[in-house]
Amino acid sequence: VSALPTNRTYAEQLDAGDPLARFRNRFVRGDEPLIYLDGNSLGRLPAATQARIAELIAGEWGRGLVRSWERWVGLPSEVGDLIGEHLIGAAPGQVLVCDSTTVNLFKLISGALDAQPGRRVLITDDDNFPTDRYVLQGIAAQRDCELRTIHTDQDEGLDEETLAAALGPDVAVVSLSQVAYRSGALADMARITGLVKQSGALVLWDLCHSAGAVPVRLDDCGADMAIGCTYKYLNAGPGAPAFLYVRADLQESLRQPIWGWFGQRDQFEMGQAYDPVPGIERFATGTPQIIGTVAVAEGTKLLAEAGIDRLRDKGIALTSYLIHLGDEWLEPFGFRLASPRADARRGSHVTLFHQDAWRISRALIAAGVIGDYRTPDRLRLGPVPISTRFCDVWDALDRLRQIAADKSYEALPTEISRVT
Amino acid sequence: VSALPTNRTYAEQLDAGDPLARFRNRFVRGDEPLIYLDGNSLGRLPAATQARIAELIAGEWGRGLVRSWERWVGLPSEVGDLIGEHLIGAAPGQVLVCDSTTVNLFKLISGALDAQPGRRVLITDDDNFPTDRYVLQGIAAQRDCELRTIHTDQDEGLDEETLAAALGPDVAVVSLSQVAYRSGALADMARITGLVKQSGALVLWDLCHSAGAVPVRLDDCGADMAIGCTYKYLNAGPGAPAFLYVRADLQESLRQPIWGWFGQRDQFEMGQAYDPVPGIERFATGTPQIIGTVAVAEGTKLLAEAGIDRLRDKGIALTSYLIHLGDEWLEPFGFRLASPRADARRGSHVTLFHQDAWRISRALIAAGVIGDYRTPDRLRLGPVPISTRFCDVWDALDRLRQIAADKSYEALPTEISRVT
Repeated sequence: VSALPTNRTYAEQLDAGDPLARFRNRFVRGDEPLIYLDGNSLGRLPAATQARIAELIAGEWGRGLVRSWERWVGLPSEVGDLIGEHLIGAAPGQVLVCDSTTVNLFKLISGALDAQPGRRVLITDDDNFPTDRYVLQGIAAQRDCELRTIHTDQDEGLDEETLAAALGPDVAVVSLSQVAYRSGALADMARITGLVKQSGALVLWDLCHSAGAVPVRLDDCGADMAIGCTYKYLNAGPGAPAFLYVRADLQESLRQPIWGWFGQRDQFEMGQAYDPVPGIERFATGTPQIIGTVAVAEGTKLLAEAGIDRLRDKGIALTSYLIHLGDEWLEPFGFRLASPRADARRGSHVTLFHQDAWRISRALIAAGVIGDYRTPDRLRLGPVPISTRFCDVWDALDRLRQIAADKSYEALPTEISRVT
Repeated sequence: VSALPTNRTYAEQLDAGDPLARFRNRFVRGDEPLIYLDGNSLGRLPAATQARIAELIAGEWGRGLVRSWERWVGLPSEVGDLIGEHLIGAAPGQVLVCDSTTVNLFKLISGALDAQPGRRVLITDDDNFPTDRYVLQGIAAQRDCELRTIHTDQDEGLDEETLAAALGPDVAVVSLSQVAYRSGALADMARITGLVKQSGALVLWDLCHSAGAVPVRLDDCGADMAIGCTYKYLNAGPGAPAFLYVRADLQESLRQPIWGWFGQRDQFEMGQAYDPVPGIERFATGTPQIIGTVAVAEGTKLLAEAGIDRLRDKGIALTSYLIHLGDEWLEPFGFRLASPRADARRGSHVTLFHQDAWRISRALIAAGVIGDYRTPDRLRLGPVPISTRFCDVWDALDRLRQIAADKSYEALPTEISRVT
């Protein structure tokens, strides 16, 4: 029997002692009494971001017009450096904000394949995020290479022995997520990176569910490449640009396939032959989206102010509290934890298995709690550290046990009708 | 001797008779008395766009949160259809707002090459916009194909005979701009498309400098593919997403290389194998940028309200008036028209040659007139129809002749220091 209390007073005590509690008020909230446990899908709107975008639009676009490119043109690498310093452990000159996660993945994997002509195998795992798997399938279909997809347990995450067995002298790139989108399982980046590099392959980490949620140490781990999105934990808004990381001493030998004018040396000379700039900006393609890029800057600064280590501590506290209440309340109703139980092996979200997860997720929304359904039988709850209270977790789980107990969800349609 | 008067009163009369004059007030302007002739590089901010983005951020992102994806997910094709209907002559289901011009060009050219295994030559011209040339160079470098670059006169635009001579049974795709970024020369889309298709190749049109400026008739011309940006004449803001067009009956056979989750059938089933949706959305890649996409919708609606034919009429009137004043005032000072003189062969901007174009463009900015310098010796002036007055053209040319006459620009540094 767990020692933690299950009464709401305890949650209130945890909130009272939370050093990050004040950050909740840095986000815009409506009048609706909403419990939002899906900031790991689309993060909340920081008030500073709302103000900064309004200022950018009125001042820099509206009045500054084309002259503002003087300041905009450096933003992708400046904001990349911010992410590098505060969130993903990358020294300056290795991170660029650009394009989408999907496009960045395509660029880096293609480049890494071209850089190693003797190695024709790509590795990923079958529980990697869909776009990661599809991009690799597309490259394998078009290029002379093979995609080797290893099996990953949907609850527990990557198995290092399975990965080790798949490595070999024919492998060019291993592409993995640091935190699994479904289970929240946190991979050991340092050990896996070492394993892959020992085999002579390059490793690419997808940080979509880890950047801003757990401390990432790309440089320390010797990681080769990484990509990630900014609309989850970085709170940069729907479709804000993604980022990519390429280790400094790999940049020269990696040539990405989309040769655009923003990667060109002396861009406005508009010369005949493409000649990529030295450094991380050679991974740029077309004109960067500026509104989204300043939103990334604001979101990153807010996380930096909170501090990634404190965010990680709170993330563990929130998710372990959620697991505790789930154990106490939900198991009799057919729920089962579908995330790693050990704190050190989990990111900032928790997934519960239930065979009726779809209808329960709908009933939960009707009860004012937004979580996330993941096909076919998973309820994903993301109490993102910067804006979630322990009381939110208590209230959400309390409503969930009521829904489970009264079986009101059984009146809902079983057909899945969803877009996210 | 031209019959048109050169006094300012005549410009005022033209403004008084301009049926589109009222649209100038639909844009945000600062207190600064600025003459802006660079809306063909970065368009002005429509007041409706400013309001719409503020509403989107506060309401749909801030309060709606992840639930707003229900409405956002259809935007890329809905806004694409708007562009298709009002600006580029495309029936529904053929235009998608996504990624950047550069990335879209890469996707379509790669797909077109794969669809025609027996044809291994790409054609473009040496005065095409840099990113177009670089993307094709990148594809040619990586794939088993040849890039054939034809010569285009920097003042007069594409030469159809030169193109005809380059065509042949080995050509897969011809990639051209409808309006040349440098000279503003307007290609005959119908005739060139016919010429290319007769040879069995596919044609791709870059509409960056034509969409929103001249009526484009993709369907009528039988064009195969097109791409274009939205931050120029569509006034959608810095780095707003681009668009792409693929003719309906070509969509099935064209497989783009970046297999992302937004192009996947039953996207949220998150299935193992990539299986592209039918229709234009198969050309989507990653998560679309939503703020930029609604800005494209607002910008397009504003142009639709003005009407593309009226915009074209005013564009001709403004540019021919500019050319007239240039003829009268500037020729003695070393200027020469570097755009086609015939109205029907010109888009909505005019380029002037001067050997000191860089310093003159700087002096012009100091005098409150923003035009654009194009390397090495071109001054590009874009009196965009929806927001430019005839008086603006008169005032700009008047200041230009004063700068040319007093040679004050000769005190400025010759070294080019610019980012756009």
